[in-house]
Amino acid sequence: MTIREPQQERSRATHQRLLEATIECLADRGWSGTTVGVVAQRAGVSRGAIQHHFPTREDLITSALEFMFDHRMNEVRIAAEGLPFGPRRVESVVVRLVDYFTGVFFKAALQVWTAAAADAALRERVLPLELKFGRKIHQVAIELLDADDEDPTTHRLVQATLDLARGLGLADVLTDDSRRRSEIVKTWAAHLSTALSTVDEPEVANNF
Amino acid sequence: MTIREPQQERSRATHQRLLEATIECLADRGWSGTTVGVVAQRAGVSRGAIQHHFPTREDLITSALEFMFDHRMNEVRIAAEGLPFGPRRVESVVVRLVDYFTGVFFKAALQVWTAAAADAALRERVLPLELKFGRKIHQVAIELLDADDEDPTTHRLVQATLDLARGLGLADVLTDDSRRRSEIVKTWAAHLSTALSTVDEPEVANNF
Repeated sequence: MTIREPQQERSRATHQRLLEATIECLADRGWSGTTVGVVAQRAGVSRGAIQHHFPTREDLITSALEFMFDHRMNEVRIAAEGLPFGPRRVESVVVRLVDYFTGVFFKAALQVWTAAAADAALRERVLPLELKFGRKIHQVAIELLDADDEDPTTHRLVQATLDLARGLGLADVLTDDSRRRSEIVKTWAAHLSTALSTVDEPEVANNF
Repeated sequence: MTIREPQQERSRATHQRLLEATIECLADRGWSGTTVGVVAQRAGVSRGAIQHHFPTREDLITSALEFMFDHRMNEVRIAAEGLPFGPRRVESVVVRLVDYFTGVFFKAALQVWTAAAADAALRERVLPLELKFGRKIHQVAIELLDADDEDPTTHRLVQATLDLARGLGLADVLTDDSRRRSEIVKTWAAHLSTALSTVDEPEVANNF
């Protein structure tokens, strides 16, 4: 038993390294450049070992997306733990959500989504992931903003925040857009903070 | 002379059909599926005729992006002509800007931008286009919203509107997102309209 445990630990570490390498490879080399061979080399594992767990390239890539998305959402949650409540919190949460859309994971997912736009079979595989990711990040945003998702205005403002963050992510794909982005994030966070705090007051709610 | 005119007219029509076919092909079949041969067939012209004007696939694609972008911006401007001023105008303008980001042109550009993320030579060609398109659409938005771009808050709110529109465009690539989108556009436009109308009042401006 004492021998098996380190082995299982090692095997789990290899598995995670493989999925991380897949995401990094997608972000750097794109959909067509992300072959099992290239990922194997980057992760330092054999092609055979990969193909044992993931029979096709598509299996490897969609598994990497699922695993790493959960990992990233945990990171966003952990980064937001202990933030004080109030207007500064809204800005910090928006910053963390935007960080997700400008990170390596989003750049990798973009490669897969864009390839899926021109490939019906891939689209079928990716659509459930898109649905899952969209629901989950909305739920995380609501939780971190401590917002009432039952309120239709709040629901839409949080959706708009995530759509804005997605657009900022896309604007960062070819160039470092961080300076421009930080100004926009500040401006929107201030708006969102005001809007969310007035949503509870029925007299004001109709203005939005 | 009377013979040359119809010929020039025909040649211009062929040129435009070719560039339109390139954009449609990118949106449908993606970057790697958009070869000179496929575009030639779709546009009903010979490969040789295309290669006479556009020696490489990259020349054809970047020319198509430039030409069709200008064409789309004109369409956005024309669609906004004659709109009344006031809150309803802001919503109509936002709808038209979002239409641009959810149309075939954006889906085509997305294929090229995503390919450029993993291809340094293509990135060098695409960066000047990204800069040009970004500036131009911001200018069109400012003009149609009749907004004061010298005001820093207005400048950032218009940028945020375009980033939101870009994010909504990306959310529409694999599925028809129009129902969800129309609610978000309404909510955002109402906010933007209120924010733009209060920017002139210095006492209120600091809230944003």
